[in-house]
Amino acid sequence: MERSRIAVTLGDPAGIGPEIVIKTFAEEELHREADLVLVGDRYVVEKAFKATGINLEINEINHPKEGNYKPGVINLINLDIIKEEYEYGKVDARCGQACFEYIMKAGQLAMDGEVDSVATSPINKEALRAADVPFIGHTEMFEEISKVSDPLTMFEVDGLRVFFLSRHVSLLKAIEMIKKDRVLDYIERSIEALKVLGVEGRLAVAGLNPHCGEHGLFGWEEVNEIVPAIEEAKARGYDVVGPIGADSVFHQGLQGKFAAVLSLYHDQGHIATKTYDFMKTISLTNSMPFLRTSVDHGTAYDVAGKNIASEVSMIEAVRLAAKYGYKFKR
Amino acid sequence: MERSRIAVTLGDPAGIGPEIVIKTFAEEELHREADLVLVGDRYVVEKAFKATGINLEINEINHPKEGNYKPGVINLINLDIIKEEYEYGKVDARCGQACFEYIMKAGQLAMDGEVDSVATSPINKEALRAADVPFIGHTEMFEEISKVSDPLTMFEVDGLRVFFLSRHVSLLKAIEMIKKDRVLDYIERSIEALKVLGVEGRLAVAGLNPHCGEHGLFGWEEVNEIVPAIEEAKARGYDVVGPIGADSVFHQGLQGKFAAVLSLYHDQGHIATKTYDFMKTISLTNSMPFLRTSVDHGTAYDVAGKNIASEVSMIEAVRLAAKYGYKFKR
Repeated sequence: MERSRIAVTLGDPAGIGPEIVIKTFAEEELHREADLVLVGDRYVVEKAFKATGINLEINEINHPKEGNYKPGVINLINLDIIKEEYEYGKVDARCGQACFEYIMKAGQLAMDGEVDSVATSPINKEALRAADVPFIGHTEMFEEISKVSDPLTMFEVDGLRVFFLSRHVSLLKAIEMIKKDRVLDYIERSIEALKVLGVEGRLAVAGLNPHCGEHGLFGWEEVNEIVPAIEEAKARGYDVVGPIGADSVFHQGLQGKFAAVLSLYHDQGHIATKTYDFMKTISLTNSMPFLRTSVDHGTAYDVAGKNIASEVSMIEAVRLAAKYGYKFKR
Repeated sequence: MERSRIAVTLGDPAGIGPEIVIKTFAEEELHREADLVLVGDRYVVEKAFKATGINLEINEINHPKEGNYKPGVINLINLDIIKEEYEYGKVDARCGQACFEYIMKAGQLAMDGEVDSVATSPINKEALRAADVPFIGHTEMFEEISKVSDPLTMFEVDGLRVFFLSRHVSLLKAIEMIKKDRVLDYIERSIEALKVLGVEGRLAVAGLNPHCGEHGLFGWEEVNEIVPAIEEAKARGYDVVGPIGADSVFHQGLQGKFAAVLSLYHDQGHIATKTYDFMKTISLTNSMPFLRTSVDHGTAYDVAGKNIASEVSMIEAVRLAAKYGYKFKR
């Protein structure tokens, strides 16, 4: 198996990002799975060493190819933005600027093919605003970096993969968006994304109504829009099945019955994955020239610097970048 | 702690009911938790013995008070309806009639205070129809037995309890039904049901839209209907909180943060519980003079009599009847 090379961003220096990233680099096993490059600031890393009691060797590099990849070493691309004291848990324009630059640098390394994927740790919208960063979040920054608009989000937890037909719209609007053409488009896009990730198997489309509406008894979207989209996709040669009742399709996905599930609205897939395992639910951004994986939690300013934040999500985000990233090698 | 006395129904004789019930009675631990009475037919039980290789002592009784309650014994109220051979996995009017009568007898025992609760195993709608039973399912039969219309369903899995604002209606209709008065009514009914079960703690109301709509950014139901209902309930002295994003409220419920979650539509709570643990998700019917617990799976005719059906759900249904049933003792 080819080895993935991953750029990890340090996140907002004032949040829990630095400590969970340091704890992630301290996991020896991950270094056996992939080459890890950290994009951040030496000052912030050393501050996180103090906060966590962890000490790793910092190996400053200019390019990922210079890395000394082994457990115990942080291969750091030191942007040297934060060079003096700041407080954990406080919105700070310097921190907003720094985490923005970490992301843009990591993204550029990925666009240049120097790494295959980027695993991001949390940033804070208020800090970004304080720094007048012209993007409101990761998604917009990665659209800018990759020049791909509307990249395809996938969640993964314990082998269950979930795509989303829509995301941040009201549930009423999400139902309106369930049209044959859109469902067909997302079936195709999801299956193409799975191919890029090297995942084989069938896509299952979730139902919208209870028990998929029982043939129109409660709800017609399955009959009028979803089934025709699935039939059309099958006719085009796509390996897809459904609709399958949302109360069992995710369970079946966890059992390995499907390569992925197409969720018809934001909460459908979010409830399934996050109720199953909140911390290990990881977001993957597809359809860019590189892979991005991300924790799905925030900067948790209230506990930052206290060495109590869990690194479980960050480790999982890096693990999934290791699992799939090498597929993007150029 | 008082001891619960539970009537267990044998279910459709042609389905997996008899074998999972026999396996449940074979679990010694359950007999330490409660007195178990089986309502069914000796012939069906003995056929299930052959199918499973399990042999327990059958103690025929006329009233639960006559039972010899200890591991290894099935205290059977033998209705003697099925007395001759029938086939597993086939729709059979005799079996439809029999399972109907098991339920009505168990319900009557509960109404008479001879047992505190009824744990039901699966029945088959086609078999009921073949027997001209005038009810389409358990719910309608229990409404007839208890004279309570619209009893309140609660799901429980691993300490997560979920109530439902609506059930078998389209998702569009379910959204229409999210009105302040209805939400308030269900908050009150849910909290009253928890009190009867002896469960202390706070009820959480799930949000409808992603991230609860972010103050109207995507969806107004939280602002216009749900928050006012919660405020009114609080003013009336109910311990309730929310709305809380559906992608975290069930996770928090599993962590023990809430006594229960009020789900705003069928799939919201179904996805959460069944993706978390499909087999251990149990349905409890509240607001009747007795408790009913039930597996949430069907008769599985395709595997009936083959000794491969899992008894996990049935055991859990009996365990929850044991946990709460004695609260209904009269």
